[in-house]
Amino acid sequence: MQLKEKIEELKNYLSEYEKLVQAMSLVYWDMRTNMPTKAGESRSKVLEYLSGESFKMVTSSKVEDFINDLSKYKNEMNHTEARMLQELERNYNETKKIPQDRYVAFVGVCSNSELAWEKAKDANDFEIFKPHLEKVVEFQKEFINYWGFKNDKYDTLLDKYELGLTTEKLDKIFAELRDGIIEVLNNVKASNKKINRNFLYGNFDIKKQKDLSLYILNKMGFDLEAGRLDESVHPFTTNFGNKDVRLTTNYHEDEFTSALFSTIHEGGHGIYEQNISDELEGTGLQTGASMAIHESQSRFYENILGRSKEFCSYLLPIAKKYFEDFKNVTIDEFYDAMNYVETSLIRTEADELTYGLHIIIRYEIEKELINGRIKVDDLKELWNKKYNEYLGVEPKSDSEGILQDMHWSDGSFGYFPSYALGNLYGAQMFHKLLEEKPDIMAEVKNGNFTEIFKWLKEKVHVHGALYTPEELIKNITGEELNPKYFIDYLKNKYYTIYNVK
Amino acid sequence: MQLKEKIEELKNYLSEYEKLVQAMSLVYWDMRTNMPTKAGESRSKVLEYLSGESFKMVTSSKVEDFINDLSKYKNEMNHTEARMLQELERNYNETKKIPQDRYVAFVGVCSNSELAWEKAKDANDFEIFKPHLEKVVEFQKEFINYWGFKNDKYDTLLDKYELGLTTEKLDKIFAELRDGIIEVLNNVKASNKKINRNFLYGNFDIKKQKDLSLYILNKMGFDLEAGRLDESVHPFTTNFGNKDVRLTTNYHEDEFTSALFSTIHEGGHGIYEQNISDELEGTGLQTGASMAIHESQSRFYENILGRSKEFCSYLLPIAKKYFEDFKNVTIDEFYDAMNYVETSLIRTEADELTYGLHIIIRYEIEKELINGRIKVDDLKELWNKKYNEYLGVEPKSDSEGILQDMHWSDGSFGYFPSYALGNLYGAQMFHKLLEEKPDIMAEVKNGNFTEIFKWLKEKVHVHGALYTPEELIKNITGEELNPKYFIDYLKNKYYTIYNVK
Repeated sequence: MQLKEKIEELKNYLSEYEKLVQAMSLVYWDMRTNMPTKAGESRSKVLEYLSGESFKMVTSSKVEDFINDLSKYKNEMNHTEARMLQELERNYNETKKIPQDRYVAFVGVCSNSELAWEKAKDANDFEIFKPHLEKVVEFQKEFINYWGFKNDKYDTLLDKYELGLTTEKLDKIFAELRDGIIEVLNNVKASNKKINRNFLYGNFDIKKQKDLSLYILNKMGFDLEAGRLDESVHPFTTNFGNKDVRLTTNYHEDEFTSALFSTIHEGGHGIYEQNISDELEGTGLQTGASMAIHESQSRFYENILGRSKEFCSYLLPIAKKYFEDFKNVTIDEFYDAMNYVETSLIRTEADELTYGLHIIIRYEIEKELINGRIKVDDLKELWNKKYNEYLGVEPKSDSEGILQDMHWSDGSFGYFPSYALGNLYGAQMFHKLLEEKPDIMAEVKNGNFTEIFKWLKEKVHVHGALYTPEELIKNITGEELNPKYFIDYLKNKYYTIYNVK
Repeated sequence: MQLKEKIEELKNYLSEYEKLVQAMSLVYWDMRTNMPTKAGESRSKVLEYLSGESFKMVTSSKVEDFINDLSKYKNEMNHTEARMLQELERNYNETKKIPQDRYVAFVGVCSNSELAWEKAKDANDFEIFKPHLEKVVEFQKEFINYWGFKNDKYDTLLDKYELGLTTEKLDKIFAELRDGIIEVLNNVKASNKKINRNFLYGNFDIKKQKDLSLYILNKMGFDLEAGRLDESVHPFTTNFGNKDVRLTTNYHEDEFTSALFSTIHEGGHGIYEQNISDELEGTGLQTGASMAIHESQSRFYENILGRSKEFCSYLLPIAKKYFEDFKNVTIDEFYDAMNYVETSLIRTEADELTYGLHIIIRYEIEKELINGRIKVDDLKELWNKKYNEYLGVEPKSDSEGILQDMHWSDGSFGYFPSYALGNLYGAQMFHKLLEEKPDIMAEVKNGNFTEIFKWLKEKVHVHGALYTPEELIKNITGEELNPKYFIDYLKNKYYTIYNVK
């Protein structure tokens, strides 16, 4: 049968491509975790070379032939085959429109820019990073011109991370989200509940933090024989197939939660990747459904699970074994401290309630920047202004302001919204999970995460990118993405903690 | 000018190739240091893929064209250009003769075989490794048939590591070496000097061993901003250009010398790679002159320097700071213990005097195996017999016998002689160094290795593979390789230590 043969041929081709990408991802992982400082320049060249090769494979005439040949069989295709073709085409079109030399140059600019961002953050000086960022932004604008756009240039970037997403849709979703958050925030601020979280700050031996992080990861279901946990300035997850999934975190001796919750967050990404079906190898679909769906898993583990009362009840006795300072802390105190609400400067350390506002700020800035209505030169001022407006705080230094995230350094414009969408997807899934299994959280108290793990695996993980995010959320919950569930979740959780009637 | 243009074109091509090799080396390094256990199979596939690509680049019609075009200009070429062409041709011929599918299959077999060797060594069971080793040996024999051979099949393998070396030459060198070693050994055995080395065994905190290893590496001149020190079962060195050179070692809590001297040994390799001239990038010559020259540097640092009286005088006070147990040890006791002679089972832990016999055993076995006069099934018995014959000891287990080295697992037959040749080259260089700078060792006592570092850098390192080993040793010492210097060195050193008149 001709279709089956063509599909097999395509799978062989994509398997080769996957190996190249795995090598490239490893080279990148190493750059962020292990590479000696003087190797930056030569490493950039290796990444340029590999990305040039990957560019060639994605845009080769072979791929064009696959697309043309397979298109004839569209009516005979099963779901997997149809999705293979769809993603192949999408990838081909997205890449083919960019001249290879520009693409390779962009990769080089990014890897230098990332290193410059690290330096700038260390030195607390945006000026070090600025010229690099300007280049990255210019490339983004140039690429949008290649890709084309309809109403808003930023739509082109959004669509890369979340198929079909537009500023028009997202403006509505974020308006609803923002209003919801601000309503809850105002009520929380008006509450006279006083939460003490001093015990989360002190001296936490890093070796012990590492041991605890690994212990919890393992408990959650992250397979340490098919993955690792390392350290990097900015925590991230990458993988080379589903049997080698690498998380990083960043330990701070003076506080308890940062590294642990980074680990749990990245662990959510990692569990997703480890549990994508082996059968999707060579299909181009052995990856997450979208960045937002990926974030839905990481933020599910980090917040919905990790900052739940039940998880805190499980965690506290263990934490007491590692750190004596927690000796007299009660479960209620621990849980409250973990969910302390405070308008603050750093996104990754923001509480679950105000987190969305950090994303909305970045979204608004990126839209302006990409549409050329502001310049890189204006970024810092605008950033500080918006933090003041939305959160009532203002950065005293670049590191705690404009330099805090690495995302712009590698040109990931359009990515930030994924985090907030991840919260929405996650809460909508959680609502469904509780409908199906109302008692599921009770087991968490005993450190038993198996049922949650199995549910997420079955509903989300195994499928990889077999479904678009829209299809997936509909398959799982029966309706499309709806911010209501997350806002309800916030109200329910924070009104209880802060005694809001 | 046509030649210059062609050379530039070739350099661009080789630069691309170097980037691919760097990526492949990193993937390999990671496999040995970081990779989670379940990823073995998929990692093998990535290595197969990359080696297939590298095979294509080495054997492409472009390379054939370069060779044909450049051959016309042989008379106009400077030394560098001539060596570029010579190595290009050598590499092309060596690779082109093997069918690509067989080469790629071999890489896959090797990466599985290496993992099997690790398992077998852990389990102390040669049977686990045997079927893999059989495959590797069969591939070696098959490849020798492609490459061709004259008198002895093993010559073909020797020549790969040491240009122009044959069993005929090596039989003579090793006969002289063996007789020399046995003469010294018999005198040492007859001596009534008693050396105590109990203080080298005990409990040595691994964290402290790591710190000490890094401290010494840095002192030796290894640049930790252009390199790293990690851990692996079998210590090794690899590099991705000269700005990212990676050493591994293996710590043992119960003894002092093993990890430290592994580190110093690998450090010797690393210093070599870091100091090869930047200008050799893209020439195909930014690498060691040969494996034996590489070993001459590692064993120079490990033994000639590292086990010298002067170095021991420098090291002891530092070792005392790290480890209290050395409190009452004198310099003489320390130096003697470091150079204690004992016929023993493990090559990497053998003393400097008997080390050569371990190599000669392997050389004799490999010759038999590759010429088909014995089978993999006979290896263990023959190994044990030869250890008895040469060293008077017999392994009680596979791990301390036939399984101790990883070299056969990746098909490095013909490599072992490099270690012994390295000792000879090193001693010959050292003799010259002392002639030129008679007082150079005095500074070592004060931890000042700069002059030695500079001499080796200038004479050996910067040149990379610009000269063949034969040319290089002649350039440096004015004569060809001569075992006499090493044997004299042994006599001088060990007769002093063991009071032999």
